[in-house]
Amino acid sequence: MLKIGIIGFGRIGKVHAWSIQTRVENACVLRICDPFMNPAMEAEAQKLGIQRWGTDAGELIHDPDIDAVLICSSTHTHAALSIEAAQAGKHIFCEKPVDPDPKRITEVIAAVEKAGVHFQVGFNRRFDHNFKALRQAVEQGKVGDPHFITVLSRDPEAPSLDYVKVSGGMFMDMTIHDFDMVRYLSGSEVSEVYAVGDALVNPQIKELGDIDSAQITLRFENGAIGCISNSRRAAYGYDQRAEVFGSRGSAATQNDTPSTLILSDEQGIQQEKPLYFFLERYMQSFADEIASFTESIVENKPTAVNGRDGLIPVLMAKAALKSMREHRPVTMAEIKQEEGVEHV
Amino acid sequence: MLKIGIIGFGRIGKVHAWSIQTRVENACVLRICDPFMNPAMEAEAQKLGIQRWGTDAGELIHDPDIDAVLICSSTHTHAALSIEAAQAGKHIFCEKPVDPDPKRITEVIAAVEKAGVHFQVGFNRRFDHNFKALRQAVEQGKVGDPHFITVLSRDPEAPSLDYVKVSGGMFMDMTIHDFDMVRYLSGSEVSEVYAVGDALVNPQIKELGDIDSAQITLRFENGAIGCISNSRRAAYGYDQRAEVFGSRGSAATQNDTPSTLILSDEQGIQQEKPLYFFLERYMQSFADEIASFTESIVENKPTAVNGRDGLIPVLMAKAALKSMREHRPVTMAEIKQEEGVEHV
Amino acid sequence: MLKIGIIGFGRIGKVHAWSIQTRVENACVLRICDPFMNPAMEAEAQKLGIQRWGTDAGELIHDPDIDAVLICSSTHTHAALSIEAAQAGKHIFCEKPVDPDPKRITEVIAAVEKAGVHFQVGFNRRFDHNFKALRQAVEQGKVGDPHFITVLSRDPEAPSLDYVKVSGGMFMDMTIHDFDMVRYLSGSEVSEVYAVGDALVNPQIKELGDIDSAQITLRFENGAIGCISNSRRAAYGYDQRAEVFGSRGSAATQNDTPSTLILSDEQGIQQEKPLYFFLERYMQSFADEIASFTESIVENKPTAVNGRDGLIPVLMAKAALKSMREHRPVTMAEIKQEEGVEHV
Amino acid sequence: MLKIGIIGFGRIGKVHAWSIQTRVENACVLRICDPFMNPAMEAEAQKLGIQRWGTDAGELIHDPDIDAVLICSSTHTHAALSIEAAQAGKHIFCEKPVDPDPKRITEVIAAVEKAGVHFQVGFNRRFDHNFKALRQAVEQGKVGDPHFITVLSRDPEAPSLDYVKVSGGMFMDMTIHDFDMVRYLSGSEVSEVYAVGDALVNPQIKELGDIDSAQITLRFENGAIGCISNSRRAAYGYDQRAEVFGSRGSAATQNDTPSTLILSDEQGIQQEKPLYFFLERYMQSFADEIASFTESIVENKPTAVNGRDGLIPVLMAKAALKSMREHRPVTMAEIKQEEGVEHV
Repeated sequence: MLKIGIIGFGRIGKVHAWSIQTRVENACVLRICDPFMNPAMEAEAQKLGIQRWGTDAGELIHDPDIDAVLICSSTHTHAALSIEAAQAGKHIFCEKPVDPDPKRITEVIAAVEKAGVHFQVGFNRRFDHNFKALRQAVEQGKVGDPHFITVLSRDPEAPSLDYVKVSGGMFMDMTIHDFDMVRYLSGSEVSEVYAVGDALVNPQIKELGDIDSAQITLRFENGAIGCISNSRRAAYGYDQRAEVFGSRGSAATQNDTPSTLILSDEQGIQQEKPLYFFLERYMQSFADEIASFTESIVENKPTAVNGRDGLIPVLMAKAALKSMREHRPVTMAEIKQEEGVEHV
Repeated sequence: MLKIGIIGFGRIGKVHAWSIQTRVENACVLRICDPFMNPAMEAEAQKLGIQRWGTDAGELIHDPDIDAVLICSSTHTHAALSIEAAQAGKHIFCEKPVDPDPKRITEVIAAVEKAGVHFQVGFNRRFDHNFKALRQAVEQGKVGDPHFITVLSRDPEAPSLDYVKVSGGMFMDMTIHDFDMVRYLSGSEVSEVYAVGDALVNPQIKELGDIDSAQITLRFENGAIGCISNSRRAAYGYDQRAEVFGSRGSAATQNDTPSTLILSDEQGIQQEKPLYFFLERYMQSFADEIASFTESIVENKPTAVNGRDGLIPVLMAKAALKSMREHRPVTMAEIKQEEGVEHV
Repeated sequence: MLKIGIIGFGRIGKVHAWSIQTRVENACVLRICDPFMNPAMEAEAQKLGIQRWGTDAGELIHDPDIDAVLICSSTHTHAALSIEAAQAGKHIFCEKPVDPDPKRITEVIAAVEKAGVHFQVGFNRRFDHNFKALRQAVEQGKVGDPHFITVLSRDPEAPSLDYVKVSGGMFMDMTIHDFDMVRYLSGSEVSEVYAVGDALVNPQIKELGDIDSAQITLRFENGAIGCISNSRRAAYGYDQRAEVFGSRGSAATQNDTPSTLILSDEQGIQQEKPLYFFLERYMQSFADEIASFTESIVENKPTAVNGRDGLIPVLMAKAALKSMREHRPVTMAEIKQEEGVEHV
Repeated sequence: MLKIGIIGFGRIGKVHAWSIQTRVENACVLRICDPFMNPAMEAEAQKLGIQRWGTDAGELIHDPDIDAVLICSSTHTHAALSIEAAQAGKHIFCEKPVDPDPKRITEVIAAVEKAGVHFQVGFNRRFDHNFKALRQAVEQGKVGDPHFITVLSRDPEAPSLDYVKVSGGMFMDMTIHDFDMVRYLSGSEVSEVYAVGDALVNPQIKELGDIDSAQITLRFENGAIGCISNSRRAAYGYDQRAEVFGSRGSAATQNDTPSTLILSDEQGIQQEKPLYFFLERYMQSFADEIASFTESIVENKPTAVNGRDGLIPVLMAKAALKSMREHRPVTMAEIKQEEGVEHV
């Protein structure tokens, strides 16, 4: 039984704790910590059968009974905690992004490699049943050579302006999942990025220097063309779809819905809206990513989303931002050089 | 924390144990028993955190730490165990059918009422997200007055001939779920049944005196017309759909699939087949029916599927069989009289 | 160029005239007649390039320039006009039903055979692109041996009470198309009929001795089971679907809609309602049935819907009515004997 | 009855002749001409009831019985014939593109305005039932303020290399319809274009200096973002879809199929591929655009697709080509200036 410690017991930390305790075999949560630990959190931990808790991440990391840590704390702590955990010989699951600074991510990668521990980044959507089926279809050659990779990703509600201020910008906060997705689906690396963006949902977001709507054109090393379309607000809910079109055809996913009910009346033929938001849509994928992480440790095989997979989407977000600001296509080579990570 | 004992640790008993331990709050499995308890079962129990096991149902029922029992043993034991548990003051969840003999079910109902315990019958499909959404649409008046209630229920594979021999016949074994479903969806009682059936999938089933394909016409007390269509084998998999059509429109459910992938190639536009069989399609509903059962106990409110709900489908199965054999419509009144349960 | 005369220039007569003049090659309408011919009809004829018109069917039939007649007049005139046309050596397309009296239809069949002319009955739905595709799938063995043939047929609006009075009853007026359809789709003959019906849409229809909702169970000679479900009013419009389910799978058709538009908003995901009614849904099929008729003449091959195809659905309607009234299944053999058409 | 002359009796000329003779009221084809007129064409004309034919476009234009001309000849003749017809006082329907040279189109527009005749350009897809329904949904405010306009347009087969050589390039030959469509759907003008393109289907097309796959990012004057995705070959057939996404939701169209048949078997759940190509998909729209043209003449109202609508897509094609070649976004203002049509 793999013993896990969770650093950060906010929304996503709780999701992982619940998943592990109820849906992941061969692993259990032994300890949690959160700088804002409080009685409600303690009660929740107890209910989940977690017996140790505290406020100190270092104590958790150095708890000799802990085999692996899940880093679910604030983004700015991810890299330092990852390095500390690696040095302590713990396996690491780190929420995305590992760090907004690509160079810092390379330091994490180096520490992980030196320590020889397993390291996985929290791009959970790779474990969604729909995107997994799409990836499998591509891998099995069902669409032939990929020509177009299209990801449509729209949130049901724009975030609060307070959130926008600390989000790191839409590309780093929201699109980063889609940057990972196009790499996952295409099986190829992006060579160039062209981004347009605007605040079409809420003009106040523009005043904060951010955007809420974007469309990103990608070129891949294998020649394929990519498109990511983002909106912070779809009136009908969380819209998460993708298509890979190639020489032999197209594979595309639809949204999941609460039920398959079709209501036909004088108004028309009506289906349900998509599942509300990421917690509803991706709940099973959160469990599956952790199961994959623990399996990679137990069976000593590479993690499904490694350090490099954590790094490249951050570089893509930087390329998109630069492209939008400078109103021109930006190559990944240019960004890598700029960030001092040419050799990734 | 409600403490539960499970009698019978076969397929469905294990499903319930797993559900309770991982998906049902406020309840846990304290003890299991099975006449064929073996080391593999014990290991599985331990893995699920169940600490007591044995072969004797009576011991489990009389374990003073047990609040409620789940009766998942062979059908012929359901009634006796239910009565014993009721007399011991335990709440009871009993798998369907409670008994093939309607009169025997009335004895269970009487024992449960006398003991004042909660009693729920395992018609899990009422808790399926699709059928629940359909029922809600009907209840909310979205289809107006129901005119037609249609249930389509097809299995992916015909059962083995050995199973057919002991199944109690297709109406009692398979259609019984659909008999419950039409009552649930319509919010009305069936007044008359006309059934045709044949062995179209496998003629050997006919030699055993059973059928594998049937179509049942129903009349409801509220005037509506019903249709149940059954096949023991759909080549494309488990087909479980329903429609309620009424004065204001139609509400209909579709199948669930492993993913929403659509593959378009030279052959056509292809979606996935339905989830394989009842364990895949109804897994969540098994958890939800137990959660509903424990909630009814904790909140001291009526169970969602009571003893009468366990009785009527058995009478409907008998009516269907009589109709098919005598080649004529059979009223429920006739069957009730015949079975000596006129006053149900 | 086949020269056609149309008897009866009401709604369906005009549809055929328009189809022939605009969509059928190798045929043209030379003459029309209608007992209520008026200036508006004449103007419409002229606009369609029809040069001869009058009130007398006999004159039209005996016009030596006419090769074939379309009988689109009142039902009670169909048989007599068909026989007269046959005796005049004209090819005949006769709207359904040929006659409500089966014996009378056999007289038409005899006259047609004696005269050696082509005779086609107006079951246009066989030419609908969806049902044709379904039939082809069955013929090509894609569903294997048929087990269930299901036809769902619902009108968008109940007819006026005045129409109901002269309609001949729902089975003869509306279901007759579905009786033809199950024969067409199954490639087998019906052996037994069990019908339930009621006035669920409008109770006044019941007072007139008719019904507006029905469900008919069929047994086929090849062992298959059939179901026809009828309503005179679906709030969401004209619902015309069918399924053939067999040993290798299922083939099913959906409704046609004005467009494929999907509107997603806060209310849900909404598609368009079906095409309004039979003129919209089956317009192309009306043209195609006439094209098939003229082709059978020009190429001297059997018509696609012959006299017997006109007779059997009438017998099925009679069987359904008797079944409903006597509350028991009725064999086709019984009806044939009763109607004195045992040898059909 | 409006009397029409058709110049050019190739594929599209024949489609229009057939449409007018069979599907357009109040108009008829009086005369056709084609420089390669031959007996087969004459026979076809006769069959359609067209009585005058020849090889000379001038004669047709100056035939005093002709009210309107359809210019369906080679692209390089469109402008000169349009001007000649305008000067002769004839109403004009001109196939797209009016001319590859924007300035030349402005000359046509000037001639048409001076003559006071009606002029319509053959962007038939505006008359497709799906795109029309989508446009109406947008106009009715059902999607709110448009944020994203997406057009997906894929052909079933790449053209022959011989065709590619004379096609004017993919943007001018194929994408031009999509350039029109985004203007039609958005109700706004494009301000900037960024295009990427490649020969992913057939590398030989690249050797000829053309492309077969492209993705075009658009910015609209109303702030919306657009995307056109093109492929010369989709293995599953002609894929023609669009979406407008806005503040209140999304409206999207699907493909049309030969039938609605769904085949479910061991392989999966399969629907039909889209209608084969533009003649199948857009046949009714060809008739409807001509009906709209004749209606605009008869009722003396503006045509649905005017000279400016013919010009702007040509400018957009030029902008796309320049963007792709120079690897940067190109504004429409820049292109207008370059082409000397600043004031359009």
